[in-house]
Amino acid sequence: MSDHTSGLEQAIERVVALGGLDASAMVSASVRLDSLTKPPGSLGRLESLAIQLAGITGDLTRTYSRRAIVLAAADHGVARQGVSAYPADVTPQMVANFLAGGAAINVLAGRVGATVSVVDAGVAGAIPAVGAGAATLIRVPIRAGTDDMTAGPAMSHDEALRAIGIGLDVVAALEHDGVELIGIGEMGIGNTTAASAITAAMTGLSPDRVTGRGTGIDDATHAHKVAMVARALSRNTPGASDPIAVLSTVGGFEIGVLVGVILGAAGARIPLILDGFITGAAALLAAGLVPTVAERCIAGHRSVEPGHAVVLERLGLRPLLELDLRLGEGTGAALAMSLVDAAVAIRDGMATFESAGVAGPAATEGVT
Amino acid sequence: MSDHTSGLEQAIERVVALGGLDASAMVSASVRLDSLTKPPGSLGRLESLAIQLAGITGDLTRTYSRRAIVLAAADHGVARQGVSAYPADVTPQMVANFLAGGAAINVLAGRVGATVSVVDAGVAGAIPAVGAGAATLIRVPIRAGTDDMTAGPAMSHDEALRAIGIGLDVVAALEHDGVELIGIGEMGIGNTTAASAITAAMTGLSPDRVTGRGTGIDDATHAHKVAMVARALSRNTPGASDPIAVLSTVGGFEIGVLVGVILGAAGARIPLILDGFITGAAALLAAGLVPTVAERCIAGHRSVEPGHAVVLERLGLRPLLELDLRLGEGTGAALAMSLVDAAVAIRDGMATFESAGVAGPAATEGVT
Repeated sequence: MSDHTSGLEQAIERVVALGGLDASAMVSASVRLDSLTKPPGSLGRLESLAIQLAGITGDLTRTYSRRAIVLAAADHGVARQGVSAYPADVTPQMVANFLAGGAAINVLAGRVGATVSVVDAGVAGAIPAVGAGAATLIRVPIRAGTDDMTAGPAMSHDEALRAIGIGLDVVAALEHDGVELIGIGEMGIGNTTAASAITAAMTGLSPDRVTGRGTGIDDATHAHKVAMVARALSRNTPGASDPIAVLSTVGGFEIGVLVGVILGAAGARIPLILDGFITGAAALLAAGLVPTVAERCIAGHRSVEPGHAVVLERLGLRPLLELDLRLGEGTGAALAMSLVDAAVAIRDGMATFESAGVAGPAATEGVT
Repeated sequence: MSDHTSGLEQAIERVVALGGLDASAMVSASVRLDSLTKPPGSLGRLESLAIQLAGITGDLTRTYSRRAIVLAAADHGVARQGVSAYPADVTPQMVANFLAGGAAINVLAGRVGATVSVVDAGVAGAIPAVGAGAATLIRVPIRAGTDDMTAGPAMSHDEALRAIGIGLDVVAALEHDGVELIGIGEMGIGNTTAASAITAAMTGLSPDRVTGRGTGIDDATHAHKVAMVARALSRNTPGASDPIAVLSTVGGFEIGVLVGVILGAAGARIPLILDGFITGAAALLAAGLVPTVAERCIAGHRSVEPGHAVVLERLGLRPLLELDLRLGEGTGAALAMSLVDAAVAIRDGMATFESAGVAGPAATEGVT
């Protein structure tokens, strides 16, 4: 057994040992919310979010103010098949942009007080030197991009385990730093193609059902992308019962890192906010390893990618936001952090019926 | 012609004189957004929000940091028919809670830096004396609640005009203070019944299609509420072509105030964020007076009230948030202000493709 395998097994055991969410904390959170000067449940998803947070952490007073966005980046051999509107050069250029603070995720993470850690899990080409400092770069490349999944496996079994191990290490460091809330994101030209292939493999749905337009491709390119996903699946035939095989054959290095981050955060009882389709595909793989991971994830938003709705439904997660985002980078996760803040503010900041001298619902409901 | 009539006519003329949104500013905003380091349109609704704001104000750099929630409160004679889960006493008690800072809207407005102005347009019963200061009370009661709409008109034609005039005055004061963004909300036990009747009258839909459970009633009370809406409409028979008649027969004082606020904000080119069903019904009345009001409104969220979806569709507005809220008070409008902040931050804070040295979409899209 390699070190990577034993690290993964320990991470899985840690999540399994937790069992379900903390039901007692959830009841206490619910009682608290119902004591506040509003009709019970009338703040809808904000209330269910506050209850889920209590269930994940067992903590009724945590404010989740120490927060981080983990943005995993890597390149994809399948990008050579012309599945994206952008050249692969954009991956290292955008990593440089994250470090310089010019990307959307920098702006949105800054608004909610989240740090940004960029994990280079296998970016092809040199990352341009720029004025850095807006994000931390964690340089742990497995190699300069995966192999082309339409011609064979994207990576070896050992590389898949290494990628997950990197994600576990990243979370361990964040846990050590006292981070209380994690959002995840990704960057990698070609990675919606990988996410589509993962989703098809894990759900059994056909490639055309789960393959969208990524950051923006035309009809002909979309048809080609669907064909490439189908070819990758017929070359590799990964089975849903073996998520590591799915990751290694049709995944990506950054997706493997995210699987590790999701597993590690679940085990550490740190609430984790998913972003779009690619992070959702990573969660599908993680939930394939330990199903209880899913209820420890928060779906930040639903993107316009058709596969994302499929993924969220399989995970049993309802997205907080539906803003037609299709950028990735963790932008939807960062936006959803505002709703965590709102949920916490409601939980902690409102008067109770008793303290405010407001009458509750009529004892006998109905016509008076 | 009374003063109220001429005030309303001037307000209508002011909106009509504006014509449509500022197309030139919208194009400029769009060009700016497309120059930023993200695929065009990939931030979805955040981008369309930034463009709409430019269209309303004609301003490409405004940050909308001076902001106010206008919360109109009044009581409803129809509450005596047992249409709510709460006793009418709750209206003044909640007004006291707004002033003391213990309500959900205080918490959510505080998070986004919005002041809260509570307009007492006709609260029945004394507002309990509490430690105030968290909100401004504008005490302009028309009288202590409307008459029971199931027995006749809720108010006189002149009272309806007075209510709208109050709303116009409130906006004039906010405009004078330099407020750049307004969210609206309401409080009034029984007012989802009024909103349902208004929506049925303005759309021609049957009461059961547009009548929901308000803050939380059981099946029997809901059936009774539908019957009360039907009775109010058959007693009063207001026609959709006369929004003032609809307001006076089946509306409410706080709803009239909101009609004035919506009209006034449109005329002043101040973006206005709607909250839930009752504010939507007010917007339907305002758009009945001047259709171009609708495109100057932002739909903060969609509530669980079935009539709200109908209202938003008639207004041609897509809600920013869908969080199953059913509280009112302006809570959904305050939450949506966070998305205004996010849209502005994206507009102003990101690098351009040129400044960051990132390649744009491939010149020739498609398979390479």
